Amino acid sequence: MPVSSLVDRYDHVLLDLDGCVWVGDACTDGAVEAVAALRAAGKGIAFVTNDARHAGEDFVRKLWRLGVQASLEEVVTGGGALQFTLAECHAGASAVVIGSAAVHRHVEAAGLRIVNDTAFASRADVVVVAGHDGFDFHELREATQAALRGAHLLGAGRDATYPMPDGPWPGSGAVLAAVETACGRRAETVGKPRPALLQTAL
Amino acid sequence: MPVSSLVDRYDHVLLDLDGCVWVGDACTDGAVEAVAALRAAGKGIAFVTNDARHAGEDFVRKLWRLGVQASLEEVVTGGGALQFTLAECHAGASAVVIGSAAVHRHVEAAGLRIVNDTAFASRADVVVVAGHDGFDFHELREATQAALRGAHLLGAGRDATYPMPDGPWPGSGAVLAAVETACGRRAETVGKPRPALLQTAL
Repeated sequence: MPVSSLVDRYDHVLLDLDGCVWVGDACTDGAVEAVAALRAAGKGIAFVTNDARHAGEDFVRKLWRLGVQASLEEVVTGGGALQFTLAECHAGASAVVIGSAAVHRHVEAAGLRIVNDTAFASRADVVVVAGHDGFDFHELREATQAALRGAHLLGAGRDATYPMPDGPWPGSGAVLAAVETACGRRAETVGKPRPALLQTAL
Repeated sequence: MPVSSLVDRYDHVLLDLDGCVWVGDACTDGAVEAVAALRAAGKGIAFVTNDARHAGEDFVRKLWRLGVQASLEEVVTGGGALQFTLAECHAGASAVVIGSAAVHRHVEAAGLRIVNDTAFASRADVVVVAGHDGFDFHELREATQAALRGAHLLGAGRDATYPMPDGPWPGSGAVLAAVETACGRRAETVGKPRPALLQTAL
Protein backbone atom coordinates (compact mmCIF):
# COMPACT_ATOMS: atom_id res chain seq x y z
CA MET A 1 0.00 0.00 0.00
CA PRO A 2 1.63 3.32 -1.07
CA VAL A 3 1.12 6.44 1.04
CA SER A 4 -1.14 9.06 -0.50
CA SER A 5 0.23 12.28 -1.94
CA LEU A 6 -1.47 14.09 0.96
CA VAL A 7 0.79 12.35 3.49
CA ASP A 8 3.86 12.32 1.24
CA ARG A 9 4.52 16.02 1.91
CA TYR A 10 5.09 15.43 5.67
CA ASP A 11 8.02 13.83 7.51
CA HIS A 12 6.11 13.03 10.69
CA VAL A 13 2.60 11.71 11.29
CA LEU A 14 0.78 11.96 14.64
CA LEU A 15 -1.88 9.27 14.99
CA ASP A 16 -4.69 9.24 17.51
CA LEU A 17 -5.37 5.80 19.06
CA ASP A 18 -9.02 5.57 20.25
CA GLY A 19 -11.31 5.60 17.24
CA CYS A 20 -8.37 6.03 14.83
CA VAL A 21 -6.02 3.04 15.23
CA TRP A 22 -8.46 1.02 17.34
CA VAL A 23 -11.86 0.86 19.03
CA GLY A 24 -11.62 -1.11 22.28
CA ASP A 25 -9.57 -4.23 21.52
CA ALA A 26 -9.91 -4.29 17.73
CA CYS A 27 -7.96 -2.35 15.12
CA THR A 28 -9.96 -0.18 12.75
CA ASP A 29 -10.11 -1.37 9.13
CA GLY A 30 -6.79 -0.82 7.37
CA ALA A 31 -4.98 0.61 10.41
CA VAL A 32 -2.27 -2.08 10.49
CA GLU A 33 -1.56 -1.72 6.78
CA ALA A 34 -1.59 2.09 6.94
CA VAL A 35 1.00 2.23 9.75
CA ALA A 36 3.17 -0.31 7.92
CA ALA A 37 2.95 1.81 4.75
CA LEU A 38 4.00 4.94 6.67
CA ARG A 39 7.03 3.04 8.06
CA ALA A 40 7.91 1.70 4.57
CA ALA A 41 7.83 5.28 3.30
CA GLY A 42 10.24 6.33 6.09
CA LYS A 43 7.78 8.59 7.94
CA GLY A 44 8.27 9.40 11.62
CA ILE A 45 5.27 8.23 13.63
CA ALA A 46 3.89 9.23 17.02
CA PHE A 47 0.82 7.65 18.60
CA VAL A 48 -0.87 10.46 20.51
CA THR A 49 -3.75 9.81 22.90
CA ASN A 50 -5.57 11.80 25.57
CA ASP A 51 -6.11 8.46 27.30
CA ALA A 52 -4.40 8.67 30.69
CA ARG A 53 -5.71 5.36 32.06
CA HIS A 54 -2.74 3.31 30.89
CA ALA A 55 1.04 3.65 30.87
CA GLY A 56 2.96 4.09 27.62
CA GLU A 57 4.25 0.51 27.97
CA ASP A 58 0.66 -0.77 27.99
CA PHE A 59 -0.07 0.99 24.71
CA VAL A 60 3.11 -0.40 23.10
CA ARG A 61 2.15 -3.93 24.16
CA LYS A 62 -1.38 -3.49 22.81
CA LEU A 63 -0.13 -2.04 19.50
CA TRP A 64 2.19 -5.03 18.95
CA ARG A 65 -0.58 -7.47 19.96
CA LEU A 66 -2.83 -5.94 17.30
CA GLY A 67 -0.05 -6.15 14.69
CA VAL A 68 1.18 -2.54 14.76
CA GLN A 69 4.91 -1.94 15.29
CA ALA A 70 5.62 0.77 17.86
CA SER A 71 8.32 1.82 20.32
CA LEU A 72 7.83 3.44 23.72
CA GLU A 73 9.33 6.70 22.42
CA GLU A 74 6.60 6.89 19.80
CA VAL A 75 3.71 6.76 22.28
CA VAL A 76 2.54 9.99 23.90
CA THR A 77 -0.31 9.72 26.40
CA GLY A 78 -2.41 12.09 28.48
CA GLY A 79 -0.46 10.84 31.49
CA GLY A 80 2.84 11.73 29.79
CA ALA A 81 1.55 15.24 29.05
CA LEU A 82 0.47 15.64 32.69
CA GLN A 83 3.95 14.56 33.78
CA PHE A 84 5.61 17.00 31.35
CA THR A 85 3.53 19.95 32.62
CA LEU A 86 3.81 19.00 36.31
CA ALA A 87 7.60 18.55 36.11
CA GLU A 88 7.94 21.97 34.46
CA CYS A 89 5.75 23.92 36.90
CA HIS A 90 5.03 21.94 40.07
CA ALA A 91 8.01 19.69 40.97
CA GLY A 92 8.22 19.35 44.77
CA ALA A 93 4.55 20.19 45.28
CA SER A 94 1.92 17.99 46.94
CA ALA A 95 -0.92 16.60 44.84
CA VAL A 96 -4.34 15.03 45.15
CA VAL A 97 -4.88 12.78 42.13
CA ILE A 98 -8.02 11.52 40.42
CA GLY A 99 -6.66 8.95 38.03
CA SER A 100 -5.48 5.43 37.34
CA ALA A 101 -2.34 3.82 38.80
CA ALA A 102 -0.54 4.92 35.61
CA VAL A 103 -1.43 8.58 36.30
CA HIS A 104 -0.23 8.22 39.90
CA ARG A 105 3.13 7.00 38.54
CA HIS A 106 3.35 9.93 36.11
CA VAL A 107 2.63 12.43 38.91
CA GLU A 108 5.32 10.89 41.11
CA ALA A 109 7.78 10.75 38.20
CA ALA A 110 7.23 14.51 37.79
CA GLY A 111 8.55 15.00 41.32
CA LEU A 112 5.29 15.57 43.20
CA ARG A 113 4.18 13.97 46.46
CA ILE A 114 0.74 12.34 46.33
CA VAL A 115 -1.28 13.04 49.49
CA ASN A 116 -4.55 11.22 48.70
CA ASP A 117 -5.98 9.53 51.83
CA THR A 118 -3.80 11.55 54.19
CA ALA A 119 -4.59 14.41 56.58
CA PHE A 120 -2.87 16.75 54.07
CA ALA A 121 -5.23 15.96 51.18
CA SER A 122 -7.39 19.05 51.56
CA ARG A 123 -4.26 21.25 51.66
CA ALA A 124 -2.64 19.85 48.49
CA ASP A 125 -0.90 22.34 46.16
CA VAL A 126 -2.17 20.72 42.97
CA VAL A 127 -5.25 18.69 41.98
CA VAL A 128 -4.67 16.37 39.00
CA VAL A 129 -7.78 15.03 37.24
CA ALA A 130 -7.88 12.21 34.69
CA GLY A 131 -10.75 9.88 33.89
CA HIS A 132 -10.45 6.25 34.93
CA ASP A 133 -12.63 3.25 35.67
CA GLY A 134 -11.91 3.51 39.41
CA PHE A 135 -13.26 7.07 39.76
CA ASP A 136 -15.46 7.39 42.85
CA PHE A 137 -17.00 9.85 45.29
CA HIS A 138 -14.08 9.66 47.73
CA GLU A 139 -11.64 10.89 45.05
CA LEU A 140 -14.10 13.59 44.02
CA ARG A 141 -14.45 14.79 47.61
CA GLU A 142 -10.71 15.02 48.26
CA ALA A 143 -10.16 16.84 44.95
CA THR A 144 -13.05 19.22 45.65
CA GLN A 145 -11.83 20.16 49.12
CA ALA A 146 -8.26 20.79 47.91
CA ALA A 147 -9.48 22.81 44.92
CA LEU A 148 -11.78 24.91 47.13
CA ARG A 149 -8.76 25.69 49.33
CA GLY A 150 -6.95 27.06 46.27
CA ALA A 151 -4.98 24.14 44.81
CA HIS A 152 -3.95 24.51 41.16
CA LEU A 153 -6.34 22.47 39.00
CA LEU A 154 -4.81 20.45 36.14
CA GLY A 155 -6.86 18.11 33.93
CA ALA A 156 -5.79 15.45 31.43
CA GLY A 157 -8.28 16.74 28.88
CA ARG A 158 -11.83 17.71 28.04
CA ASP A 159 -12.93 14.67 26.02
CA ALA A 160 -16.56 14.11 27.01
CA THR A 161 -16.42 10.44 26.00
CA TYR A 162 -14.19 7.91 24.28
CA PRO A 163 -15.31 5.15 21.92
CA MET A 164 -15.68 1.59 23.21
CA PRO A 165 -17.24 -1.46 21.54
CA ASP A 166 -20.43 -1.18 23.64
CA GLY A 167 -20.77 2.57 22.99
CA PRO A 168 -19.18 5.75 24.37
CA TRP A 169 -17.67 5.74 27.87
CA PRO A 170 -17.41 8.94 29.93
CA GLY A 171 -14.02 10.59 29.44
CA SER A 172 -11.72 12.84 31.44
CA GLY A 173 -13.85 15.85 30.50
CA ALA A 174 -16.87 14.41 32.32
CA VAL A 175 -14.87 13.68 35.48
CA LEU A 176 -13.24 17.10 35.30
CA ALA A 177 -16.68 18.76 34.98
CA ALA A 178 -17.68 17.26 38.34
CA VAL A 179 -14.60 18.78 40.03
CA GLU A 180 -14.97 22.12 38.26
CA THR A 181 -18.65 22.37 39.19
CA ALA A 182 -17.98 21.45 42.82
CA CYS A 183 -15.21 24.03 43.23
CA GLY A 184 -16.63 26.69 40.89
CA ARG A 185 -13.42 27.09 38.95
CA ARG A 186 -12.07 26.11 35.52
CA ALA A 187 -9.03 23.84 35.17
CA GLU A 188 -5.94 24.06 32.99
CA THR A 189 -5.83 21.02 30.68
CA VAL A 190 -3.01 19.33 28.77
CA GLY A 191 -4.84 17.03 26.31
CA LYS A 192 -5.70 17.69 22.69
CA PRO A 193 -6.55 20.27 21.45
CA ARG A 194 -4.32 21.99 24.04
CA PRO A 195 -0.65 22.30 23.00
CA ALA A 196 0.91 20.47 26.00
CA LEU A 197 0.26 16.96 24.67
CA LEU A 198 1.72 17.82 21.25
CA GLN A 199 4.71 19.57 22.87
CA THR A 200 5.31 16.35 24.77
CA ALA A 201 5.17 14.46 21.47
CA LEU A 202 7.84 16.65 19.81
CA MET B 1 -38.02 32.85 72.76
CA PRO B 2 -40.75 34.82 70.89
CA VAL B 3 -40.89 34.71 67.08
CA SER B 4 -39.84 37.93 65.38
CA SER B 5 -42.35 40.22 63.70
CA LEU B 6 -40.81 39.20 60.37
CA VAL B 7 -41.98 35.59 60.84
CA ASP B 8 -45.22 36.52 62.59
CA ARG B 9 -46.86 37.53 59.28
CA TYR B 10 -46.59 33.97 57.88
CA ASP B 11 -48.55 30.80 58.71
CA HIS B 12 -45.97 28.35 57.33
CA VAL B 13 -42.19 28.31 57.50
CA LEU B 14 -40.01 26.20 55.17
CA LEU B 15 -36.63 25.45 56.74
CA ASP B 16 -33.55 24.21 54.92
CA LEU B 17 -31.61 21.50 56.80
CA ASP B 18 -27.92 21.52 55.72
CA GLY B 19 -26.29 24.71 56.94
CA CYS B 20 -29.57 26.01 58.37
CA VAL B 21 -30.79 23.54 61.03
CA TRP B 22 -27.51 21.58 61.14
CA VAL B 23 -24.01 21.14 59.78
CA GLY B 24 -23.09 17.46 59.71
CA ASP B 25 -24.15 15.96 63.04
CA ALA B 26 -24.47 19.17 65.06
CA CYS B 27 -27.33 21.67 65.20
CA THR B 28 -26.52 25.26 64.33
CA ASP B 29 -26.62 27.72 67.25
CA GLY B 30 -30.20 28.44 68.32
CA ALA B 31 -31.81 26.06 65.81
CA VAL B 32 -33.51 23.89 68.45
CA GLU B 33 -34.91 26.93 70.28
CA ALA B 34 -36.03 28.59 67.04
CA VAL B 35 -38.03 25.56 65.87
CA ALA B 36 -39.61 25.20 69.35
CA ALA B 37 -40.58 28.89 69.26
CA LEU B 38 -42.20 28.46 65.82
CA ARG B 39 -44.23 25.52 67.16
CA ALA B 40 -45.22 27.48 70.29
CA ALA B 41 -46.45 30.25 68.00
CA GLY B 42 -48.57 27.73 66.05
CA LYS B 43 -46.65 28.03 62.78
CA GLY B 44 -46.72 25.22 60.20
CA ILE B 45 -43.22 23.92 59.58
CA ALA B 46 -41.68 22.00 56.69
CA PHE B 47 -38.06 20.87 56.60
CA VAL B 48 -37.01 21.14 52.96
CA THR B 49 -33.71 19.75 51.73
CA ASN B 50 -32.17 19.04 48.34
CA ASP B 51 -30.34 16.19 50.06
CA ALA B 52 -31.43 12.97 48.37
CA ARG B 53 -28.98 10.66 50.11
CA HIS B 54 -31.29 9.75 52.96
CA ALA B 55 -34.95 8.79 53.36
CA GLY B 56 -37.43 11.08 55.07
CA GLU B 57 -37.48 8.70 58.06
CA ASP B 58 -33.71 9.18 58.47
CA PHE B 59 -34.14 12.94 58.67
CA VAL B 60 -36.96 12.63 61.23
CA ARG B 61 -34.79 10.38 63.40
CA LYS B 62 -31.86 12.77 63.14
CA LEU B 63 -34.02 15.81 63.97
CA TRP B 64 -35.36 14.13 67.12
CA ARG B 65 -31.85 12.99 68.09
CA LEU B 66 -30.67 16.59 67.87
CA GLY B 67 -33.64 17.80 69.93
CA VAL B 68 -35.88 19.08 67.13
CA GLN B 69 -39.47 17.81 67.02
CA ALA B 70 -40.55 16.75 63.53
CA SER B 71 -42.97 14.39 61.80
CA LEU B 72 -42.45 12.52 58.56
CA GLU B 73 -45.07 14.67 56.81
CA GLU B 74 -43.02 17.76 57.59
CA VAL B 75 -39.85 16.52 55.87
CA VAL B 76 -39.48 17.08 52.13
CA THR B 77 -36.31 15.76 50.53
CA GLY B 78 -34.71 15.82 47.09
CA GLY B 79 -35.65 12.15 46.82
CA GLY B 80 -39.27 12.96 47.59
CA ALA B 81 -39.29 15.63 44.88
CA LEU B 82 -37.80 13.15 42.39
CA GLN B 83 -40.55 10.67 43.30
CA PHE B 84 -43.25 13.33 42.88
CA THR B 85 -41.99 14.33 39.41
CA LEU B 86 -41.33 10.74 38.26
CA ALA B 87 -44.77 9.54 39.39
CA GLU B 88 -46.43 12.42 37.50
CA CYS B 89 -44.55 11.98 34.21
CA HIS B 90 -42.73 8.64 34.02
CA ALA B 91 -44.69 5.93 35.90
CA GLY B 92 -44.11 2.57 34.17
CA ALA B 93 -40.83 3.67 32.58
CA SER B 94 -37.42 2.06 33.04
CA ALA B 95 -34.70 3.99 34.82
CA VAL B 96 -30.96 4.04 35.37
CA VAL B 97 -30.29 5.63 38.76
CA ILE B 98 -27.25 7.40 40.17
CA GLY B 99 -28.15 7.71 43.81
CA SER B 100 -28.31 6.27 47.30
CA ALA B 101 -30.49 3.35 48.37
CA ALA B 102 -33.06 5.97 49.48
CA VAL B 103 -33.22 7.40 45.95
CA HIS B 104 -33.63 3.90 44.51
CA ARG B 105 -36.63 3.41 46.84
CA HIS B 106 -38.15 6.74 45.77
CA VAL B 107 -37.76 5.84 42.07
CA GLU B 108 -39.45 2.46 42.62
CA ALA B 109 -42.19 4.05 44.72
CA ALA B 110 -42.91 6.34 41.76
CA GLY B 111 -43.68 3.26 39.67
CA LEU B 112 -40.48 2.97 37.64
CA ARG B 113 -38.40 -0.15 37.00
CA ILE B 114 -34.69 0.25 37.83
CA VAL B 115 -32.49 -1.42 35.21
CA ASN B 116 -29.00 -0.64 36.56
CA ASP B 117 -26.61 -3.58 36.02
CA THR B 118 -28.87 -5.24 33.47
CA ALA B 119 -28.61 -5.61 29.69
CA PHE B 120 -31.35 -2.95 29.40
CA ALA B 121 -29.40 -0.22 31.21
CA SER B 122 -28.25 1.59 28.07
CA ARG B 123 -31.84 1.60 26.74
CA ALA B 124 -33.47 3.05 29.88
CA ASP B 125 -36.26 5.63 29.39
CA VAL B 126 -35.10 7.89 32.23
CA VAL B 127 -31.78 8.67 33.90
CA VAL B 128 -32.12 9.85 37.51
CA VAL B 129 -29.10 11.61 39.03
CA ALA B 130 -28.56 12.42 42.72
CA GLY B 131 -25.29 12.84 44.57
CA HIS B 132 -24.30 10.17 47.07
CA ASP B 133 -21.21 8.79 48.75
CA GLY B 134 -21.32 5.61 46.65
CA PHE B 135 -21.10 7.42 43.31
CA ASP B 136 -18.60 5.70 41.00
CA PHE B 137 -17.50 5.32 37.39
CA HIS B 138 -19.75 2.33 36.73
CA GLU B 139 -22.87 4.38 37.58
CA LEU B 140 -21.56 7.27 35.48
CA ARG B 141 -20.98 4.98 32.49
CA GLU B 142 -24.46 3.42 32.61
CA ALA B 143 -26.10 6.83 32.98
CA THR B 144 -24.00 8.27 30.14
CA GLN B 145 -24.84 5.49 27.70
CA ALA B 146 -28.57 5.69 28.46
CA ALA B 147 -28.58 9.50 28.18
CA LEU B 148 -26.68 9.37 24.87
CA ARG B 149 -29.38 7.01 23.54
CA GLY B 150 -32.00 9.63 24.39
CA ALA B 151 -33.21 8.85 27.91
CA HIS B 152 -34.91 11.71 29.76
CA LEU B 153 -32.40 13.25 32.20
CA LEU B 154 -33.71 14.20 35.66
CA GLY B 155 -31.45 15.53 38.43
CA ALA B 156 -32.08 15.99 42.15
CA GLY B 157 -30.57 19.47 42.02
CA ARG B 158 -27.69 21.71 41.07
CA ASP B 159 -26.08 22.28 44.47
CA ALA B 160 -22.34 22.29 43.79
CA THR B 161 -21.51 21.34 47.39
CA TYR B 162 -23.13 20.88 50.78
CA PRO B 163 -21.63 21.85 54.13
CA MET B 164 -19.97 19.23 56.30
CA PRO B 165 -17.86 19.63 59.45
CA ASP B 166 -14.59 18.99 57.55
CA GLY B 167 -15.54 21.43 54.77
CA PRO B 168 -17.77 21.30 51.68
CA TRP B 169 -18.58 17.95 50.05
CA PRO B 170 -19.46 17.69 46.34
CA GLY B 171 -23.23 17.85 45.81
CA SER B 172 -25.74 16.57 43.28
CA GLY B 173 -24.80 19.43 40.94
CA ALA B 174 -21.23 18.15 40.63
CA VAL B 175 -22.34 14.59 39.89
CA LEU B 176 -24.95 15.87 37.43
CA ALA B 177 -22.29 17.98 35.65
CA ALA B 178 -20.32 14.79 34.90
CA VAL B 179 -23.37 13.17 33.27
CA GLU B 180 -24.36 16.33 31.40
CA THR B 181 -20.83 16.82 30.07
CA ALA B 182 -20.55 13.18 28.98
CA CYS B 183 -23.87 13.22 27.10
CA GLY B 184 -23.74 16.82 25.91
CA ARG B 185 -27.21 17.65 27.19
CA ARG B 186 -28.75 19.60 30.09
CA ALA B 187 -30.97 17.89 32.67
CA GLU B 188 -34.30 18.86 34.18
CA THR B 189 -33.87 19.28 37.95
CA VAL B 190 -36.31 19.19 40.86
CA GLY B 191 -34.29 20.68 43.74
CA LYS B 192 -34.32 24.26 44.99
CA PRO B 193 -34.52 26.77 43.37
CA ARG B 194 -36.71 24.74 40.96
CA PRO B 195 -40.43 24.64 41.90
CA ALA B 196 -40.82 20.81 42.07
CA LEU B 197 -39.36 20.46 45.58
CA LEU B 198 -41.57 23.24 46.95
CA GLN B 199 -44.63 21.82 45.14
CA THR B 200 -43.89 18.54 46.90
CA ALA B 201 -43.76 20.44 50.20
CA LEU B 202 -47.20 22.01 49.74
